[in-house]
Amino acid sequence: MYVILVYDCGQKRVGKMLKLCRKYLSWIQNSVFEGEISEVKLKELILKAEQIMDADDDSIIIFSSRQEKWLNNQIIGKERSSIENFI
Amino acid sequence: MYVILVYDCGQKRVGKMLKLCRKYLSWIQNSVFEGEISEVKLKELILKAEQIMDADDDSIIIFSSRQEKWLNNQIIGKERSSIENFI
Repeated sequence: MYVILVYDCGQKRVGKMLKLCRKYLSWIQNSVFEGEISEVKLKELILKAEQIMDADDDSIIIFSSRQEKWLNNQIIGKERSSIENFI
Repeated sequence: MYVILVYDCGQKRVGKMLKLCRKYLSWIQNSVFEGEISEVKLKELILKAEQIMDADDDSIIIFSSRQEKWLNNQIIGKERSSIENFI
């Protein structure tokens, strides 16, 4: 399946979350990722993310589709930030 | 068209951006919105967003499709925040 993942988490956990998500998906911008992923791998990702997250403060949204990649993604404003800012 | 919009902007501009996006789309979580919108309205939204944004620091990602709404969106972690936190 194809997914878009957006996480929102406390500053302390951003680095870990970024590292985790990059293992499974392609980084687009800041806290936004996309990519093809199997259901099993997605479950694994969610499980690991839950271990990082503070359930009271953090959240992740996952849009998923069985179809192929979506048509367009358009970025307005700042260019893709350097990954080095995050790790 | 159906769009998913994610913004990332400085704390000072979050309130304005939220207000703007809510006029055009449905708020899902934090800085994530979705909804059906015409191309003209989307252009209008982008134009207004650019007036709020600091182009050096802020960004918006828009995923768009001519198809109907995507299949699933799944939220992990914190429940939808109260809108009052943002305005």
